[in-house]
Formats: sequence, structure tokens, C-alpha cells
Amino acid sequence: MLLDKPTLYTDFYELTMAQGYFLSGRHEQPANFDYFFRKLPFKGGYVVFAGLSDLLEIVNDFQFHEDELAYLEKQGFKKEFLSYLEDFRFQGNIWSVKEGEIVFANEPVLRVEGNILETQILETVLLNTLNFESLIATKASRIKLAAGDKSVLDFGLRRSQGLGGLQASKAAVIGGVEGSSNVMAGKMYDIKVSGTMAHSWIQSFEDELLAFRTYAEHYPDASILLVDTYDTLKSGVPNAIKVAKEIEEQGHQLLAIRLDSGDLAYLARESRKMLDEAGLDYVQIAASNQLDEHVIKSLLDQGAPIDLFGVGTKLVTAYDHPALDGVYKLSSINNNPTLKISENVEKITLPDIKKVVRYLNEDGSFNCDGVLLEDEEDQDMIYHPHVIHKSTPVSQLKSEPLLNKVVDSGKIIISLPTPEESSKYAQKRLLKLNQEHKRFDNPHVYKVGVSKKLRELKDQLVQNS
Amino acid sequence: MLLDKPTLYTDFYELTMAQGYFLSGRHEQPANFDYFFRKLPFKGGYVVFAGLSDLLEIVNDFQFHEDELAYLEKQGFKKEFLSYLEDFRFQGNIWSVKEGEIVFANEPVLRVEGNILETQILETVLLNTLNFESLIATKASRIKLAAGDKSVLDFGLRRSQGLGGLQASKAAVIGGVEGSSNVMAGKMYDIKVSGTMAHSWIQSFEDELLAFRTYAEHYPDASILLVDTYDTLKSGVPNAIKVAKEIEEQGHQLLAIRLDSGDLAYLARESRKMLDEAGLDYVQIAASNQLDEHVIKSLLDQGAPIDLFGVGTKLVTAYDHPALDGVYKLSSINNNPTLKISENVEKITLPDIKKVVRYLNEDGSFNCDGVLLEDEEDQDMIYHPHVIHKSTPVSQLKSEPLLNKVVDSGKIIISLPTPEESSKYAQKRLLKLNQEHKRFDNPHVYKVGVSKKLRELKDQLVQNS
Repeated sequence: MLLDKPTLYTDFYELTMAQGYFLSGRHEQPANFDYFFRKLPFKGGYVVFAGLSDLLEIVNDFQFHEDELAYLEKQGFKKEFLSYLEDFRFQGNIWSVKEGEIVFANEPVLRVEGNILETQILETVLLNTLNFESLIATKASRIKLAAGDKSVLDFGLRRSQGLGGLQASKAAVIGGVEGSSNVMAGKMYDIKVSGTMAHSWIQSFEDELLAFRTYAEHYPDASILLVDTYDTLKSGVPNAIKVAKEIEEQGHQLLAIRLDSGDLAYLARESRKMLDEAGLDYVQIAASNQLDEHVIKSLLDQGAPIDLFGVGTKLVTAYDHPALDGVYKLSSINNNPTLKISENVEKITLPDIKKVVRYLNEDGSFNCDGVLLEDEEDQDMIYHPHVIHKSTPVSQLKSEPLLNKVVDSGKIIISLPTPEESSKYAQKRLLKLNQEHKRFDNPHVYKVGVSKKLRELKDQLVQNS
Repeated sequence: MLLDKPTLYTDFYELTMAQGYFLSGRHEQPANFDYFFRKLPFKGGYVVFAGLSDLLEIVNDFQFHEDELAYLEKQGFKKEFLSYLEDFRFQGNIWSVKEGEIVFANEPVLRVEGNILETQILETVLLNTLNFESLIATKASRIKLAAGDKSVLDFGLRRSQGLGGLQASKAAVIGGVEGSSNVMAGKMYDIKVSGTMAHSWIQSFEDELLAFRTYAEHYPDASILLVDTYDTLKSGVPNAIKVAKEIEEQGHQLLAIRLDSGDLAYLARESRKMLDEAGLDYVQIAASNQLDEHVIKSLLDQGAPIDLFGVGTKLVTAYDHPALDGVYKLSSINNNPTLKISENVEKITLPDIKKVVRYLNEDGSFNCDGVLLEDEEDQDMIYHPHVIHKSTPVSQLKSEPLLNKVVDSGKIIISLPTPEESSKYAQKRLLKLNQEHKRFDNPHVYKVGVSKKLRELKDQLVQNS
């Protein structure tokens, strides 16, 4: 459980609006909100959706406790509203794509249905959770794509944004990273934890050789020796080789050496040679130091013999794009469709209750997505949401629905996936996304269209406004 | 309390190293670690130090619980080490600058003294807390500098990095922001909370006027009406004016209108005119939408009549520089000075136990900082840490020590400051930092030098290594 008491992890205005709805007797109005984002992060071609399990646990446990109500009373909230909150539970419905699903801009990824008060009050914590976990899962997925069959571990906790590090490590696993140094994330989410050693370990010994030897003595089959404290090729690697040969005689195998500074391509190549010449071809090479998908790709393009990448800051903070712009927009109130007007046509929202359909090519790969009104049947064409003449025929394509009911009348009706399960799902789905959408440079834009009826409804509401 | 059970919020290697020290009988060796950072964020000239109170609470509560030990046992840790951990408490000493202090690169901001095990095991959670909170306090300070006497509120929770949002809101206040939308941060840290309304509030009503009127009815003296849902100047502002006049008759005052899209400078000017013409010169104008220090400076340079800035994503994620590169380095072991060698001279650390002295100009403004060995007296000159010929005379300057003991034998010996107190301290200290160091573009570099003895000790250790 990420947040024991989640109700106050919210913007103040969610609560003042809730009280406003309640006091004016409007809180029971049926409402529908969509969660979606407008811009793909990292100049990339897709997002790996994450945060669903944490969110559903939060929804499940969304109740106001005595100390919270007392705080709200001090903030001026009215007694009658506070007694309403005392018994408050979310009793609406939620539809969502699966955790680990590959999703795109401007399609509803999750929708919440209920009365206006209970749907509104979830906004901030929902956005906080889904935006961040999806962001990091996506970054991790890109890093793993670059690393290919090499291993990637998350070493980012010291630079992650405070307690956000907990979710960063989890989301990184969903996105494809194999494990984390984050012990709490390991315990809480059953993630594989691992680590190496710090420079301080080595500095605390009389010399590097003794430091390596002592570590290997206690972790004879799990040692990754950090070789750059003094001089990587003149001291670190030779000492690591000595220790590897010593423990070999006792029937053990040194796991790896770790490079953490200097030119990683050059040092990996030279270290590999030295290890191989000593008959230690089984000893792996781990590398760390400001890695991201671009550096990893460059290292592997250069043929650097690195087996394991430890990624930190750039992964856990999504350094080059540290926020996903996900929003939560009202699409229906009192059973009437509604939208948010904007001078920027791209920011006009899609009205009414919708479903999302993924169209598939013959080989099962993803062709495009369509956003339809909920009661619509199969479509012949999918239309660009605001460029009139653009459309795509889909009548010949197989399709699958993306949004599934996950909460019914306030009760979670799916079994929450573990990060490992979501990771497997993401990997499986990513294989169905064509290569050109996964390219790091100027990826081909994956089509997300709307049905004719939805576009007409939107145009009509814009005109009437 | 930020983390109820902080011990596992750490990198796995801190625990494997701790066990290694323990099993090899080396864990009682006296050790000293320095926390410092190497690079100022945001291309700026200073950092506002934050995170100390949260860190000290964590240190104070740093004990392993049953479920944590059981998890570690499953991870292969040895029984004898786990029984050591059972009674483990940090019993060392910590010196630190004050929370809210203005600090610079390459000077110890905090140091931890104790045995190698207890000092090492704090590393990850210490870095996680201090790096992030200092980063956000610094960003907030820059934003507040740009805003001058205008108010700034944190509205960032929906885009903050997961649970990191809690610390972001706190650190933003330390850095100078007046309040937050984050209710949990408000409750936990006694921060002023506030908010406005969402577009969904307005959309949920039959029309904008009724939406405004209903809100103002419930919050007659605290309403900030969001005016851009349909058309800011044709609909939003006129409707806000109508409601303001209505509640005026009942003896109330509309607090503000909020602009959230479009050209904020233009819309603010036009809205101000319309409000003034209606005799509503007391109604303030709030603005939000992707604001940071640069946008705010530009708006105010253009004379935009904005009274209150709501900042979000750019603040709470430190968008343009989302991680502070703070490190925690061993400087002394077994009472012997030690340093970390690097091929990059700028990354060679400063050995031994040190103090930091701030030299002051006659008017009390900051002249430069000096890093001295702990037992050194007043200096005549302060030297550049690695450029031999650079030095600054300081003998005529008054000085003050920056590092104060905050934990003695494991006990906190200061009263932990509230965010508001730290904010006041930061503001006071920032006034003593000359303008050229606070400039956004190419700020003048504030000098941080070392004593002659410290530089000699460093050079000698580098040569001997």
C-alpha cells in the first residue's frame, strides 16, 4: 500500500469543490471523467501505462479519518459536509486499459464514472499516480529497448525525487528493467533487489585488493567489484582478476566488475581483454554513470562488451522530460455530453462516454486506435480528430477493446497485477508495435482517430457553445 | 514524519556493505562522511539547503522492525548480522548548515561522524532527502525572486513525481513560495493551503454565471473564479464581474479571477481594465499555466498586472534540472584522512574532517566561503581547490562558522525548524548574497576556497595514492 491515508493527498480545490457540490445539492449528479495525455514524452512514439494497481488500492482505501476531518474543520469546512465525508467511499465505476498497455496521446486510457463529487475528488491523486508511474515505465521501456538482451538495473534511489523513488523503482520494472537497488520497493512490490559496492567500501580498507578480497569472502558468488576507485586498468581490474582466481580455487565465480567513470566503451573493451586473457570469460562487465537510452545505444553500437547497465538519475527522474502531461477531463454530466473549449483546437476535449478500440494488422501488430462513442458498433473509417479530410479505413481489420471495467460500484473486480506481470504484458504488447513507432529519432506517429459520430458530436457541441 | 519505517528506503549495497563490515569485524572503525554537491542547478548561482528536518527525523527513527528483518533474512542476510541490526540505532554525530542556508558547490553542507557501519548505512536516504528538497527549495527561491512582491502558490501536486509531491510542497515553502494546494503537506507541515476551482466545476453547471454564483455563495470571501472555460474576455471576466457586484451588495469581496490559458500578459491587462472599470480594483488577478521563473520575469517585465502566480509542474519537478548531484563521500577512516581519486581533478574529494567558514563584507553581505581543517584557526588567504595560483585574502574579513552540531551521540540537539521558519531564514540569508550571484543568466561564481593546509593535505594524498 503506497499511501495509508490517501484522501488528503490532493489539491485543496478538490475539497472546496466537493463541499460546493454538496452544499448546493448537486453532488449526486452522474458524471464521467477521462484520463488521457496530450503529448508523448521523450520525443518518443508511445507510453507504457503504469500506476493502475497503486491507484486502485488508493481508491479502495479512500476514506476520511478522524484526524483528517479535524484538520479540514480547522480549514473552515462545514460540519454537515464533514459528516458526509465521514461515511464517504467511492462507489462508482472505473474502466481502464491494462497496466503495462502501450498507449498513445489523446485517447482515454482510463475513465471514471460516478457522481460528480466522488469522481472529482479522485482527480489529483489519480493524476499524480498515473502520470508519474507511466512516465517512468515509458523511460524504462526505452532504456530496455536500447539495451536489448543486456540486463538493466535501477540504481537511482539517491537521486530520485524524494519518496517518489518508491514508485520510480516499481514503474521501472513495469517498463522492463530487471531489478532495482531499492530495498523498500523490493519488499513492497516483490521486485528483485541487487547492488554492488561503493567507493567508500574500498577506501575504508588499507588497499583495494584487501577490500575486494573481503567482499568476495562474504559474497563469494554475488560480488560485483567496483574497479575505478584508484585506476581502473592499472589497479582495479588486475586486483579483481587476482580475487577472481582466488575464489575460483574455492569453487566460486566472481559475478562481475563495475565501471563507473571514464570512457566506458574503451574501458569495457580493455577490461574484457584482460579478463579473457586471465581465463575469466564468465566474469561480466557492469557499467554505470549517467546512463540513458541514448548512451546505452551508443555504447552497444560501438561494440562495448558490457553485460549489465546500472541506470540511475536519468531513469528515475525521467531527466529529459520529467512530467507526463496527463489530464482528467469531464466528458459527461447529468447524462449530457460536455467538452472543454479551447482556442487551441488540439486542446478541445472529446465529449461523452467513449470506448477505445485497437485495430490490428493480419499479423496481429497494431494498426491504429479508434475512439468511439460507447454504444457504437464496428466502424468503416476512423477520422482525424480535427483535420477534416484525414481518415483511415478499418473495416477489414480485426479489433480489440482496450478499456475494461476494473472497479464496479466501488469494488475492485480484477486481481491487481504484480510489477513483473505488468512488465511481461508490456513486453508482449511492445512486440506488436511496429519498429518505426519505437525509433528514438522522429518516430512515426501512431494513428489515433475518432468515429464519425464522435467527431460530429464534438463539432456540434463546439458550435453550440 | 515523512517515512514511518525508513531503514529499507535504501540501496541494497548499503546493507551488503554493512554486513561485510560487521562480519569482518571492521564495523566499529571511526569514519566521517561529507555531503556536498558539485554543480549548481538551473545554471544558477546558489542552492537553498533543505531536507534537514525530514532527515533528522529519519535518523532519529532509524531502527529495523521485525518484518524488515524477516525480509532481509529472505534476501540471504546472516542471522548474526540481523541480530545486530535488531538493536541498531545511529549513535554518531551530525554537523549541518541550517535548513534554508544559502550554500554553494564543493563545500561540505553536512557531515556525519560515527562508526563506518552507521555512517554508511544512512547514505541513500540522506542523499534522497537532501538532494530533492534542496533542489526544489532552490527552484522555488528563483521563482519567488522573479515574482518579487507578488504572491506565488504551489499548484503542482498532479504532476509531481508520485509521493515526492509531499516533499516538493514543503521544500517550495522553504524556498519562498507562500502556500500550496497540497492538503497533506498542509496538514503534515503546517503549511498554508489554498486553491481555486477546476474547469469541471464550471462545465458541470448549466452555464458559467451559475457556476461562479454558486461557488461565491459558498466561499463569499475566498473565491478565485477561473475565467477561461469558454472565452476569457467575452464570457469569463464579464460573468466574474457580475458575481463580484452581487456579492459586494452582501458585503463580500471577490478575491480574484484566474487566467489559465492564452496570452497571460494581454489577458491580464484587458481583465484589469474591465475589473477597474467596474469599480473592482480590489479583485486580484491570478495566473497559471506552465509558469517558471523565466515566464514570470517576462510577464512582469511586460507590466502584466498579475497579483498571484500559481506554479506547478516546472516547480515541483524542477523541470529544467530535475536532480541535484549531491554526493556523500568518505573523508576519514580510522582517524586517517582519505579521498576519492579521479582522473577529473574537479571530482577529487576533500580529505579529513573539515569546517566551513563564511567570510563577510563590511555590510554583512557574503564575500566567499572557506573550507578548513577542523582544528585550523583564522586564515589569511583562501585558495582555489585545484588551480594553484588563485587565492583570495580574507584576513580583514569577519567570518562565521556554517556547520553546527545537530545530532550528538544519536540525539537531535536542535529544535527542528518549521518550513515557515526555514523560509524566513532563507529569505534573510538571500538578502546577504550579492545580486550578481542571483542573476538568472550567467551568474557570477561565488568563491569557495580551501585553506593552505587542506590543499597541501589533498595534494599529498593524491601523490601517495
